[in-house]
Amino acid sequence: MNTVNHQFRLARRPNGAVSRSDFDYVAAPLEAPAEGQVQIQILYVSLDPAMRGWMAPSEDSYMPPVAIGEVMRAIAVGRVTASQHPGFAVGEHVSGMLGVQEYAISNGQGLNKVDPKLAPLPLYLGGLGMTGLTAYFGLLDVGQPKAGDTVVVSGAAGAVGMIVGQIAKLKGARVIGIAGGADKVRYLIEELGFDAAIDYKNEDVAEALKKHAPKGVDVFFDNVGGAILDAVLGRLAMGARVVICGAISQYNNTSAMQGPSNYMQIMIKRATMRGVMVLDYYPRAMEAIVAMGGWIAEGKLKTREDVVQGLDTFPETFAKLFSGGNNGKLVLQVAA
Amino acid sequence: MNTVNHQFRLARRPNGAVSRSDFDYVAAPLEAPAEGQVQIQILYVSLDPAMRGWMAPSEDSYMPPVAIGEVMRAIAVGRVTASQHPGFAVGEHVSGMLGVQEYAISNGQGLNKVDPKLAPLPLYLGGLGMTGLTAYFGLLDVGQPKAGDTVVVSGAAGAVGMIVGQIAKLKGARVIGIAGGADKVRYLIEELGFDAAIDYKNEDVAEALKKHAPKGVDVFFDNVGGAILDAVLGRLAMGARVVICGAISQYNNTSAMQGPSNYMQIMIKRATMRGVMVLDYYPRAMEAIVAMGGWIAEGKLKTREDVVQGLDTFPETFAKLFSGGNNGKLVLQVAA
Repeated sequence: MNTVNHQFRLARRPNGAVSRSDFDYVAAPLEAPAEGQVQIQILYVSLDPAMRGWMAPSEDSYMPPVAIGEVMRAIAVGRVTASQHPGFAVGEHVSGMLGVQEYAISNGQGLNKVDPKLAPLPLYLGGLGMTGLTAYFGLLDVGQPKAGDTVVVSGAAGAVGMIVGQIAKLKGARVIGIAGGADKVRYLIEELGFDAAIDYKNEDVAEALKKHAPKGVDVFFDNVGGAILDAVLGRLAMGARVVICGAISQYNNTSAMQGPSNYMQIMIKRATMRGVMVLDYYPRAMEAIVAMGGWIAEGKLKTREDVVQGLDTFPETFAKLFSGGNNGKLVLQVAA
Repeated sequence: MNTVNHQFRLARRPNGAVSRSDFDYVAAPLEAPAEGQVQIQILYVSLDPAMRGWMAPSEDSYMPPVAIGEVMRAIAVGRVTASQHPGFAVGEHVSGMLGVQEYAISNGQGLNKVDPKLAPLPLYLGGLGMTGLTAYFGLLDVGQPKAGDTVVVSGAAGAVGMIVGQIAKLKGARVIGIAGGADKVRYLIEELGFDAAIDYKNEDVAEALKKHAPKGVDVFFDNVGGAILDAVLGRLAMGARVVICGAISQYNNTSAMQGPSNYMQIMIKRATMRGVMVLDYYPRAMEAIVAMGGWIAEGKLKTREDVVQGLDTFPETFAKLFSGGNNGKLVLQVAA
């Protein structure tokens, strides 16, 4: 019987790229659930760029930062191992904000039951989880692509980007992905059916967009910010929609974020810039999950999970998100 | 009888602030109108920040740049002095894109008749002209303020800003202006009835906004860009509307524009960033002019024209827009 709960606790606010020394890796005593609580053994932890923001000292973000000494916040799926909660039985699987640790105690709030017979558990963190909801609502609700539109997505081989591009294709758009490296570009075109892909590490993005988007960009779904955001702003079509999802190129900055110097194109091209905040769409989650689940079942939407073994690898595995080292949805497997 | 037409022609693309040497001041022969044309003696030339953009080598703006050697583009009002056009009679007054010169020849396209008995001629360049339309539609159509909203306007003592703030007050909003210097701040509060004003030259804008906009900013109408845009983005209320009208702090940059490093607040605050392009509202111009004309007649909307004498002062007078040296709508008087 396990008596220990290994945890990554935030030891200090990272300065630039995240390193192991930003965390304390501790062996806490395994807690039993109190009345109304449930104990969950964590199986898979979702690793998301947003977590970098939660480590930062931001006074004005969409949720408070993780406190120093607190278990690092993360979405995860796990199995109920003990329950004093009438709604959850031992052996059931759940997803929720469970943290970077082996076991979590929850009062049930924010937990969602998931069924491993319907889909592999990591998929509930990816295409059927927050990643999928972000892609689905960010593209369709904020970006509003019409058939025939040119849709550009940055971070296109990442967890959100690869879904955005495929949904845009399903909606009849012409889709251009921006990603780093020849392998990712090949994957987007050959495996996912993107119409074109730009290797930002080896191509001039602005020039490549002139070629691939001769009539301009109707929808831009941005996961990266920085120079790529500026390049696409410089190529907007009239009435374009710019969906701000993330700015991974900027999260490890030690100075201020680089703002888009081309932002006046928003005015010139009668464009709209809005963000997608997935929390706001939780009440409509079922709509996305039904649609995405159907597309996945029909083989129309491919997902890709990059599963790395071992809770103890967390800092180094997390860093892959920022070096472009992951392929698709990055997930840490904690237990089987 | 006049035989000469003094003109400012663009001699080169300015590098940074505009100077006299960027223009050729020439005495061209006065042309007579051909069949279907009208000759207009220019009385007042509108000086607008947008003109700085028209001098730039932009390959991707909302209208082509002024060509080297071409008369500098500007909106103006004048009097018909000779006509071979059935729609315009000698002695009638018109406004249009007439240029920085003493006389213009026009085929009538884009000319609007204006009546000096109904309003002083400079007002047709200000509150009843493009300036007024920009303020009216930018605030009401793009910004969509509701009664009780907190509206912030930058460049608040400028031609567009002073109208934006007053319309916002008329619509029941709480209005905060950002302007440079104690005189302008006093003018906004005491003369125009703004609820508060921030002197960006002597105050920390972000700190002042915490005080004056404790619940955040619902609508931001931005004329200036740069550090002020970032400060207001950092103080948005949930669901805010950011109206991009101009970026006068950046137009004379010799390197790239400074983009808003706080742009992720658009996502965090579920805000929308859009521009106002007044050209798009020309078909609805009458709606604004009727409303504004009424408010002016009732004394509910104050206008202020800063009229400088002499076509030959054009380069130096234009530069006042960028130093904050003008008070209200800057107009060059060319003739009486």
